[in-house]
Amino acid sequence: MTDASTNMRLKLPITCFILEIIIIILFGVLVQYDEGTDAKLWHDRNHSSHSDYDNDFYYRYPSFQDVHVMIFIGFGFLMTFLQRYGFSSVGFNFLIAAFALQWATLMQGFFHGMHGGKIHIGVESMINADFCTGSVLISFGAVLGKTSPVQLLLMAIFEVTLFAVNEFIVLSVLGAKDAGGSMTIHTFGAYFGLIVARVLYRPNLDKSKHRNSSVYHSDLFAMIGTLYLWMFWPSFNSAITAHGDDQHRTAMNTYYSLAACTLSSYAMSALTAHDGKLDMVHIQNAALAGGVAAGTAGEMMLTPFGSMIVGFVAGIISVLGFKYLSPVLESKLKIQDTCGVHNLHGMPGILGAIVGAIVAALATADVYGEGLTDVFPDVASGEISASDQGVRQIISLAVTLGIALLGGLIVGFILKLPIFGAPPDTICFEDSIYWEVPEEETGHGNQLTTVRTEETEKLSS
Amino acid sequence: MTDASTNMRLKLPITCFILEIIIIILFGVLVQYDEGTDAKLWHDRNHSSHSDYDNDFYYRYPSFQDVHVMIFIGFGFLMTFLQRYGFSSVGFNFLIAAFALQWATLMQGFFHGMHGGKIHIGVESMINADFCTGSVLISFGAVLGKTSPVQLLLMAIFEVTLFAVNEFIVLSVLGAKDAGGSMTIHTFGAYFGLIVARVLYRPNLDKSKHRNSSVYHSDLFAMIGTLYLWMFWPSFNSAITAHGDDQHRTAMNTYYSLAACTLSSYAMSALTAHDGKLDMVHIQNAALAGGVAAGTAGEMMLTPFGSMIVGFVAGIISVLGFKYLSPVLESKLKIQDTCGVHNLHGMPGILGAIVGAIVAALATADVYGEGLTDVFPDVASGEISASDQGVRQIISLAVTLGIALLGGLIVGFILKLPIFGAPPDTICFEDSIYWEVPEEETGHGNQLTTVRTEETEKLSS
Amino acid sequence: MTDASTNMRLKLPITCFILEIIIIILFGVLVQYDEGTDAKLWHDRNHSSHSDYDNDFYYRYPSFQDVHVMIFIGFGFLMTFLQRYGFSSVGFNFLIAAFALQWATLMQGFFHGMHGGKIHIGVESMINADFCTGSVLISFGAVLGKTSPVQLLLMAIFEVTLFAVNEFIVLSVLGAKDAGGSMTIHTFGAYFGLIVARVLYRPNLDKSKHRNSSVYHSDLFAMIGTLYLWMFWPSFNSAITAHGDDQHRTAMNTYYSLAACTLSSYAMSALTAHDGKLDMVHIQNAALAGGVAAGTAGEMMLTPFGSMIVGFVAGIISVLGFKYLSPVLESKLKIQDTCGVHNLHGMPGILGAIVGAIVAALATADVYGEGLTDVFPDVASGEISASDQGVRQIISLAVTLGIALLGGLIVGFILKLPIFGAPPDTICFEDSIYWEVPEEETGHGNQLTTVRTEETEKLSS
Repeated sequence: MTDASTNMRLKLPITCFILEIIIIILFGVLVQYDEGTDAKLWHDRNHSSHSDYDNDFYYRYPSFQDVHVMIFIGFGFLMTFLQRYGFSSVGFNFLIAAFALQWATLMQGFFHGMHGGKIHIGVESMINADFCTGSVLISFGAVLGKTSPVQLLLMAIFEVTLFAVNEFIVLSVLGAKDAGGSMTIHTFGAYFGLIVARVLYRPNLDKSKHRNSSVYHSDLFAMIGTLYLWMFWPSFNSAITAHGDDQHRTAMNTYYSLAACTLSSYAMSALTAHDGKLDMVHIQNAALAGGVAAGTAGEMMLTPFGSMIVGFVAGIISVLGFKYLSPVLESKLKIQDTCGVHNLHGMPGILGAIVGAIVAALATADVYGEGLTDVFPDVASGEISASDQGVRQIISLAVTLGIALLGGLIVGFILKLPIFGAPPDTICFEDSIYWEVPEEETGHGNQLTTVRTEETEKLSS
Repeated sequence: MTDASTNMRLKLPITCFILEIIIIILFGVLVQYDEGTDAKLWHDRNHSSHSDYDNDFYYRYPSFQDVHVMIFIGFGFLMTFLQRYGFSSVGFNFLIAAFALQWATLMQGFFHGMHGGKIHIGVESMINADFCTGSVLISFGAVLGKTSPVQLLLMAIFEVTLFAVNEFIVLSVLGAKDAGGSMTIHTFGAYFGLIVARVLYRPNLDKSKHRNSSVYHSDLFAMIGTLYLWMFWPSFNSAITAHGDDQHRTAMNTYYSLAACTLSSYAMSALTAHDGKLDMVHIQNAALAGGVAAGTAGEMMLTPFGSMIVGFVAGIISVLGFKYLSPVLESKLKIQDTCGVHNLHGMPGILGAIVGAIVAALATADVYGEGLTDVFPDVASGEISASDQGVRQIISLAVTLGIALLGGLIVGFILKLPIFGAPPDTICFEDSIYWEVPEEETGHGNQLTTVRTEETEKLSS
Repeated sequence: MTDASTNMRLKLPITCFILEIIIIILFGVLVQYDEGTDAKLWHDRNHSSHSDYDNDFYYRYPSFQDVHVMIFIGFGFLMTFLQRYGFSSVGFNFLIAAFALQWATLMQGFFHGMHGGKIHIGVESMINADFCTGSVLISFGAVLGKTSPVQLLLMAIFEVTLFAVNEFIVLSVLGAKDAGGSMTIHTFGAYFGLIVARVLYRPNLDKSKHRNSSVYHSDLFAMIGTLYLWMFWPSFNSAITAHGDDQHRTAMNTYYSLAACTLSSYAMSALTAHDGKLDMVHIQNAALAGGVAAGTAGEMMLTPFGSMIVGFVAGIISVLGFKYLSPVLESKLKIQDTCGVHNLHGMPGILGAIVGAIVAALATADVYGEGLTDVFPDVASGEISASDQGVRQIISLAVTLGIALLGGLIVGFILKLPIFGAPPDTICFEDSIYWEVPEEETGHGNQLTTVRTEETEKLSS
């Protein structure tokens, strides 16, 4: 454990300090308050009749906070299901999210927030930064337990950058719609992470197999993560849609997609178990697939009816993936997907992208009325047809997959360099390699019988 | 455990799939976006001068999310106090809530959301659906540990339906006020559940007695549920009151009622223990009674002073109920109320209804000014007197109790049919009958000493 | 354990009942709804053209709920890191917060909420009451594990009162700005608590040393507290700033300060450990120092760049404090600071006050435009210069420290009276002295092997 290679005493501080100092310098040079946060600009605009109550803070910030909870509590606790990796799950999630949101502010700002050479920021950029961070955390799920914090920070640097590039191409160049990020966040994060996991394949991971499972209370901690993701997903998908009916509709569509998904997940979990017992892995993950799958079409006139069908199908696909596809991915494709991100974010993300393309292609002025301008501005202006929009969506999916796969491949090889302190195969899924872990008493009795097994002694010697 | 009768491999998937497919079909036929969520309708109205910022999403959605957290985290974790029933508490809560909110959208829509043969939905119907779901979860508390997920889904179908009928009679026919649901949610859910528990009485439940208690960390998980219920109860009671002062006042009244209730609960908990030690059961439950008791009068001019008195009394009643009444209910009336819902929702609900009737009867135009129209429209219009309103409230309480008791009786007998996979008396309060439960290591040491006791082996054989 | 001196059977109920009854009477005599919550007043004002949507509820309540979560979940769970003190951490936090928010409504009302002899209350007073409560909970952290609930309630009475006095002097008399409370909340609460801890110094606390540490799952529970504090700190600092750009800017500054602080905390935690392993104590606490340090300057034009520098430094100071200063405080100054509040709230609070003074002194009309009126009204009106404002800030820090230290000294001696049931040195950090604690099973097996050690038997006999 105090093996020089995994010792973080210099590697982690150097990485953190250099990154943070670079970020601070770039913020000093490039970043400015936007109109809603700058005292002078806001009050200047005031002359042109807006009220303090019109500040976008009031119409975005509650959604932002829900998203924020999903990022730090939702993703963080979802991954605490491992019996001996709770500190790292929550703690590394916390670290890379805190880094990624700063880096994302800069990268996204370069691509779509520049005003006169400066990046203008406010609540909308904060939401976008959290979104980008979500993508990194999805990839984290694929490599959970097998990477050092330095590797994770490096992954975040590259992934955030590529995310911003892909987002720019998809949303700005191709003109696709993806408010809840079925493509840009979920598909991108999942396939990026899966390829990284493929490159980092560990043929002897079996040596840590006994830790790659849950215990009773770790599963309960994970349910905290699941439920916060589930409850706040309507806020996630609607956080940056247009104001008014768009946000309202997106939230409602997502709510019903998730509800239907939950029922199909429970059904499939019992159906695929030989003794009909529910599996916590399915409940913790598959029940969320409905939120992923409603990420693109949620803002469209999908209707609650359509949303429920999407969620229903997503739940089925996701459980089937956990049950039958994940073992194949590991044995045949050598992808060790710790959290099953392929089942929660990968396939449901692609489903969401396809549903989005179909619903976009079916859009008519009759259904959307003047609201068409908010959802499909280019269709509303007559520049393109609805089916063109559908094609845009599909091309965007392909681009996203391409950038994710290629980017993940390159980043995987970078992370494979043997200088970043990755844990050995025998001590994966183990907090004590990077954390001070308290000794335990047995049974919570008042008399402390500390359990100090041979292995811990060996490790900490 | 793999006993055919409790095996859910077919029963649960069939139930979930049939229910979800019925719901999806009914949504396809009957449900439409309302004005605030439909792209065309919203933008048509736009001509008549409203702004996107006027969308009700911004004035209800933050409250909705607080309510949503209460339903899924609050109720779910509150019930994790049982040492071996955490998966079921959180997991079945999740399942039946996800079902109930969909079914409630339809049932409540039939009774008060129809427009030209269609049910119109938006954030307000989402809040109402969550409210109705809360009622089912209260009943769940009474039968916790003794029912299969199929029984719970069946209970939800009937209870949601009867809830919608009762709500329609109380609010629309009788014209009572009950914004926070002291009557329609708490009294209804509690007495419905208690009668179901009565019908499902298990004379040999003692055989599972050793599991019907908490362990140290399960009590901490339960406190997560308690605190989220406590913190967000002001949002719950105010979520569907009229905009402006009404929501504001309701939230504040509830806040003070809960604060006073907490002090009286702690006081009574210490006072009623022979050694002055606080009992987690009281803290987890009685401290919430102030929210229940402020559910009807919270929107009225109860004043913080009045709210505190109500909360103070509710806390005292609730602890006394746990200490002295619950044992009697079990031994004399054969009601095995696992979570003590009679003490948290039953008696405080009735208290809240009575307080509501009194405060309504005392309403004067002098106190409410023109705000009387929002709170008591029929009194403001001169159609009835304030004391008439008080009478309406009391009649509504009686109707609610009647429908709850009669409904619970019938539903209890339906659930008693021996085909729904209820657990045997010897294995109540036990997750492993319906869930894959991970084997445990002792002491979290690195060396895994899995504890596989004789009983588990027997059960899983 | 049933030692008469620590038996709460009469002491706690009497204290709670007397306090609550006094509060209820004072509320009856003194407290009234404000314009936003009173049915008549709100609707009278309606004549003068405001809409229900203008009610301050919609612009403050989401922030209030975030603050509320920080108070009850954030502070409560942050302190559950102790292995045998989870019930007390969450439970006493709950009790004293529920009391303090009521008492604070009155005390703060006396000093800055009186209108015609009445205290007018609404959502803003609710936020202020929660803020004041936060200060008491910080002090609680310093004496955690060594005090009875009666002592804590007494401490709350005095501390809330002195908080209101200090707040009045700092904000109203001296005209300082401190929206997020670097001075009034954090510095005040920390130094007050530290002096109380000094007076209550226990030379033989080593006898309870084996309980004064965490176990694996208690550290995970504590992370729930940490993350909620971290996520919602932007809401805390912005909750009572002026509407519009001020709230928006404050939230964003805090967000970046915290993100930078997290990176420096992780870096310093690894750097100061001999084997490079991260320490949960640092992650749980130091990563929050950025929120404290942005408490005064957050509403000013600190810029994200400045915020990050402040957070970055705060994280470094805080980890260094935990590592090198806390042991010295205990050994030399005899301050046994259980939670390390000096490192999280004390030093970062002072840093925040100084940063606030500097940023205030540098304020120019050129940077703030007409927004200067919101942030520094006296500077905008020309009454004083910006550097005068900076001097005001520094004087306010000195006053705050003075009142905290003197007040804590007096209150410490009051609490030292041997009649309030403080635990003996041998049974500190132990729930079972004030709580019914469930017996434990080992290993969560189905067969219950209750661990009833000699000590528990002795204690409960």
